[in-house]
Amino acid sequence: MTSIDSLMTAPPVTALADEPAEVPRGLKGVVVADTEVGDVRGSEGFYHYRQYSAVELAERRPIEDVWRLMIDGALPANAAQRAAFISEVAPLRQISATVRAVLPAIAAVSEPLEGLRTALSLAAAERGLRPVIDIGPDQRRVDALFLCAITPTLLCALHRLRTGHEIVEPRDDLGYAANYLWMLTGAGPTAEHSRAVEQYLISTIDHGFNASTFAGRVVASTGADMGACVVAAIGALSGPLHGGAPSRALALLDEIGSPARIEEVVAPMVERGDRIMGFGHAVYSTDDPRSVMLRSVARRLAADSADRELVAFAEATEAGVIGILDRWKPGRHLRTNVEFYAGVVMQLCGIPPEMFTPTFASSRVIGWCANILEQAVDNKIIRPSARYIGPPPPQPIPAMA
Amino acid sequence: MTSIDSLMTAPPVTALADEPAEVPRGLKGVVVADTEVGDVRGSEGFYHYRQYSAVELAERRPIEDVWRLMIDGALPANAAQRAAFISEVAPLRQISATVRAVLPAIAAVSEPLEGLRTALSLAAAERGLRPVIDIGPDQRRVDALFLCAITPTLLCALHRLRTGHEIVEPRDDLGYAANYLWMLTGAGPTAEHSRAVEQYLISTIDHGFNASTFAGRVVASTGADMGACVVAAIGALSGPLHGGAPSRALALLDEIGSPARIEEVVAPMVERGDRIMGFGHAVYSTDDPRSVMLRSVARRLAADSADRELVAFAEATEAGVIGILDRWKPGRHLRTNVEFYAGVVMQLCGIPPEMFTPTFASSRVIGWCANILEQAVDNKIIRPSARYIGPPPPQPIPAMA
Repeated sequence: MTSIDSLMTAPPVTALADEPAEVPRGLKGVVVADTEVGDVRGSEGFYHYRQYSAVELAERRPIEDVWRLMIDGALPANAAQRAAFISEVAPLRQISATVRAVLPAIAAVSEPLEGLRTALSLAAAERGLRPVIDIGPDQRRVDALFLCAITPTLLCALHRLRTGHEIVEPRDDLGYAANYLWMLTGAGPTAEHSRAVEQYLISTIDHGFNASTFAGRVVASTGADMGACVVAAIGALSGPLHGGAPSRALALLDEIGSPARIEEVVAPMVERGDRIMGFGHAVYSTDDPRSVMLRSVARRLAADSADRELVAFAEATEAGVIGILDRWKPGRHLRTNVEFYAGVVMQLCGIPPEMFTPTFASSRVIGWCANILEQAVDNKIIRPSARYIGPPPPQPIPAMA
Repeated sequence: MTSIDSLMTAPPVTALADEPAEVPRGLKGVVVADTEVGDVRGSEGFYHYRQYSAVELAERRPIEDVWRLMIDGALPANAAQRAAFISEVAPLRQISATVRAVLPAIAAVSEPLEGLRTALSLAAAERGLRPVIDIGPDQRRVDALFLCAITPTLLCALHRLRTGHEIVEPRDDLGYAANYLWMLTGAGPTAEHSRAVEQYLISTIDHGFNASTFAGRVVASTGADMGACVVAAIGALSGPLHGGAPSRALALLDEIGSPARIEEVVAPMVERGDRIMGFGHAVYSTDDPRSVMLRSVARRLAADSADRELVAFAEATEAGVIGILDRWKPGRHLRTNVEFYAGVVMQLCGIPPEMFTPTFASSRVIGWCANILEQAVDNKIIRPSARYIGPPPPQPIPAMA
């Protein structure tokens, strides 16, 4: 079962039998594993979680259902199964006394994702997570649920402390996304905002073998505990080339300021060859399906006049920038990526820009864990080769002058 | 400049122009990058750091020289350059007040490498390490030196706290390895023990694109800060399939107990297909050059009668197990790997078994940083593909029962 996308995008590989395997830089298009977690078909503008369209899941299900799908392999078939899953994960999101005692020191010196990296590492150690190759699938599953459940709580607690507020305890009477906004702001969110954030979260759970997912799988391939794998993935997500851009896309809107200035601000940037944040994607040659969905979520949210103005400005900017890009880079078909409307939606829902990428981490951790669980089954250590291009060894070691 | 080894070990890659690139599982033999850091020639039993034989460096230079070679690209040419490097790194190994305050909580719940993962993550955040793509080579170099310098201090401090002792401060009048033993034990080590540990440390600084080095490079490819990269590598090293075995090799000696029992203990294990810890390596088809060197170090250390007995027993075990392996697995040429005599040497130098892999981390961090620095130059994000093999999407999302 080969996706059409991988057929289309994979570059040809040429190698003779006595030469090392040559692959494109960055392993672009290189199939490194079989997976049942999901796939991205960039040329079709389609991506899926297991056998379901990710966008359709975001439109029709709560995130807890999709979380269960990713970890257990199936959507809940009925309300009882859904309730059982929610009851199982609820206690896992409580921060332990040990971790709580250290959080202020972490928050004082850490950006949100750095803080998560440290706090999750500690939480995993305290819970005694064991190497994935030394435990069975049931224990691995519980470890995965723990890491997914504790991530949003830790992120919100770190943000509260960093901004001089008390930690807000998770509430079991709220759904996942409503509880997230509650823990972040300390205020009961509207149903509209909760659902919008939930749809954003669902739409970003997984997306092929992106760099953070792959980093998690490389660590899992050594048999390390699942905490070590997720901590590695968090580090990769903190890289500006991967998870670092949603707030920068919003910063572009700030810089432009008004629809009249789109051409005057953006055209020189494109002319200079600057990357326009929120536009273009390494995998999609079509519209990014996440962007299309999030634009419709943004439109739905535009209830009051201030919100309407932001969404209208974002849409004008989208149209204007695409016009400039099509003019300067004909044939490239550069369109808005997930980050553009993600920033708009999170802004409308009251999530501060410094929490945009951490909010992304709150959902992507589910995808990481699904991938790590898969890697742990029928595992082989990931240990590639490199071509040495320095001076030929062994050179004599010089004597000290 | 292609190493003979990669020519020998790389399997052929066959792909048609319209098919995705197919590569061996675990990327075995797949050249994912060019490097000047070093290489392993498994079929020749040879490995090198930059243009020098790693074993020769371990025999002729202090570790500070090799550290400078890996990070700055050149051995110090004279005593003044050596002294300048040592002066530069000495203050970087001091633990900050913030990290110190949190170490007891980390030590209380963490195994040594888990604790390092957490503490180094915090130390990197406190130091404000910035994304490698947002800073220049000079700042990246200083960040690398900091992470290398702080790692042994953090590991020893965590071990001291974990075993109920006070933290021992680093001493500037001691060389790197002597200071390591000092911080670990609180006693001034002998010159013989310091030099033996130093040779072990030098011999394990780097070894091709092993899983932890590759994990660090994957994270670096996202442009993340160097702390995120090293934290990921620590996680990979904590995996039993990668860094987890030196103490297990020593445990085998304990299990055998006496030379007379080698056959009776090991033969049934080999017959059952168990992996014999300390024997066999994925890359070397010859003797492991690190094992050869460390065996000579162990012999040199065998000063008193108890030490002599352990070394003689280890050598008898090596000979006995090789005999069994050659009998049961003819043609495989399974020999002792780095872990076998590493455990013996560390035991003789008073390093407790739970610190064997952490001691490995203390030197390998230098190799990680050299690789991360290289990845940050002319970088491309590492984002492979996978083949989806689940049920064909999109399946209709079932209604709840």
